[in-house]
Amino acid sequence: MGKVAVLGAGSWGTALALVLGDNQHDVRLWTHREEQADTINTTRQNKKYLEGISLPDNVKAYHQLNEAIADVETIVLVVPTKAIREVCSQLKEHLHHKVTLIHASKGIEPNSLKRVSEMIEEELPRDFYGEVVVLSGPSHAEEVGERHPTTVTVSSVDIALAQKAQDLFINDKFRVYTNQDIIGVELGGSLKNIIALGAGISDGLDYGDNAKAALITRGLAEIARLGAAMGANPLTFAGLTGVGDLIVTCTSSHSRNWRAGYKLGQGYKLEDVLEQMGMVVEGVRTTQAAYQLSIEENVEMPITKGLYNLLFNHERPKDIVDQLMNRGKTHEVEELPDEFRNHTL
Amino acid sequence: MGKVAVLGAGSWGTALALVLGDNQHDVRLWTHREEQADTINTTRQNKKYLEGISLPDNVKAYHQLNEAIADVETIVLVVPTKAIREVCSQLKEHLHHKVTLIHASKGIEPNSLKRVSEMIEEELPRDFYGEVVVLSGPSHAEEVGERHPTTVTVSSVDIALAQKAQDLFINDKFRVYTNQDIIGVELGGSLKNIIALGAGISDGLDYGDNAKAALITRGLAEIARLGAAMGANPLTFAGLTGVGDLIVTCTSSHSRNWRAGYKLGQGYKLEDVLEQMGMVVEGVRTTQAAYQLSIEENVEMPITKGLYNLLFNHERPKDIVDQLMNRGKTHEVEELPDEFRNHTL
Repeated sequence: MGKVAVLGAGSWGTALALVLGDNQHDVRLWTHREEQADTINTTRQNKKYLEGISLPDNVKAYHQLNEAIADVETIVLVVPTKAIREVCSQLKEHLHHKVTLIHASKGIEPNSLKRVSEMIEEELPRDFYGEVVVLSGPSHAEEVGERHPTTVTVSSVDIALAQKAQDLFINDKFRVYTNQDIIGVELGGSLKNIIALGAGISDGLDYGDNAKAALITRGLAEIARLGAAMGANPLTFAGLTGVGDLIVTCTSSHSRNWRAGYKLGQGYKLEDVLEQMGMVVEGVRTTQAAYQLSIEENVEMPITKGLYNLLFNHERPKDIVDQLMNRGKTHEVEELPDEFRNHTL
Repeated sequence: MGKVAVLGAGSWGTALALVLGDNQHDVRLWTHREEQADTINTTRQNKKYLEGISLPDNVKAYHQLNEAIADVETIVLVVPTKAIREVCSQLKEHLHHKVTLIHASKGIEPNSLKRVSEMIEEELPRDFYGEVVVLSGPSHAEEVGERHPTTVTVSSVDIALAQKAQDLFINDKFRVYTNQDIIGVELGGSLKNIIALGAGISDGLDYGDNAKAALITRGLAEIARLGAAMGANPLTFAGLTGVGDLIVTCTSSHSRNWRAGYKLGQGYKLEDVLEQMGMVVEGVRTTQAAYQLSIEENVEMPITKGLYNLLFNHERPKDIVDQLMNRGKTHEVEELPDEFRNHTL
């Protein structure tokens, strides 16, 4: 079995280290906090992020990056999106051999509007990994920790690398599908937060199941449309990293995005909601990024535009919904770009 | 405004009559029960099926079919699937002029494996309507009755007829999209019940959100695959009548299919579950139909096959899930049939 470094010991990093541990790999779980590494090694648990779950013995925590990655064949990056560039520049300093590079972070960088793999490619020379692999899908970390059945997608332009990642992670509780559309997989994982926010707003307005299902479905259609304009296969958005991830996010009241939307739907102001929640609501930043992208790419995104006006131009939720319901009459299915003809779900 | 007959005064037929009434049409709501027609006309409510909702004055109930359809331009068929052939043969007797024919029934006929529009075409000569239009989408009737925002799709091979139906129903609470893929729309509305049953089983086994999202997403992929083999556009399954309807069904504990699945997941026997529920569980019959279709069309449908074995061959839910998790390694997105290249969500 192989040697793998998992960089980032949050809940998702820890859960992925556990899956790799179950598969008998030699796993190095890196955190920059020495105390956290020590506690994991002595208690065999990551109490703060994955309480009550014991890690396999072959998972060891490290706080020195150079030690964690010294002779590994694979590096799995699971740090927050805003830390990606910093960790990559540290990697550049310490990495002296070629690895398979997998990331499992979600988000679009504000202003630059870059996806995570694009940020990695800008910070770390390709000689060290060839093409990036992304791992994404509908997955609460706690359920992975409890070995409940879970499915994810691994995607890379280089399908051989995606298959390597599939072999590394797959087991009878953690099913892994390959996919070659890294743009669609990364965009789906990020943009779904906009729809979760919208679903929360609909629920906060007490509009019911019909309205929420409409918002999710038509929201999906518009992020697929943006994705297509950016080179993604629209069908990827109907898969695990699109619909699948969306279902987990929109039907779980644990979702921060849904909860923020719910409060907005009830009439609270954005500033108050963000202050109340005391943490980053990814969907708010993503709405801004998607709105900018829709203008750049000249793609019609009525739901995103409505949410943008609600968040940043003080429009009322009820007025936004009225505008959405009163648009011109529309056909449901649109044209697929040439390069993705012949694909299906 | 036009004259429209709505045949079938269940909850969905009544809700659609109300939408048409709100749009100022002259609406005749037909039920074969004289007493029900009388009560609706005197109380302005359909107490049994849509309690607490007052119907607009321009909706009148009829119990004589020939009176209801005498000079209407449009007929909306909303009877249970098993009554379609009977009502169509009555229509054949009484209908003496051409109409726009819309149906809003869901299901696949046992044994013949026909869709509703195919059953209609077999019973009623085309001269009376040209092409059938189907209306389907994520919609609890009660929410339509309360004028909560709702979206549906109308589909016909003849797009001009779909547009007629769109014009008839659309208003600021009821948004209607057109679609030309009647096979996909009808199959989606029926086959989604299989997935709802499966989602219930997963919840009954307490497998969590990851497993349920996986089941819904991969279930969607396999019904899209079957649909494609039968001439549908796989992308239709990512729309309102596929994903949309599925979200409403799988996230609502009101769904009979979900509830039956939940009991099965908890270990109850099929006979006991059906007896306990005291009513038809559509997903059970649909699983059988879809299993037959998957063999006829030679389409791989692992989830449907697993459910079939659970329902009819006494396999244990846990064993089915283990089989699903341990299939060969798979790629996520497949090939689209030639005729649907160039389409997107």
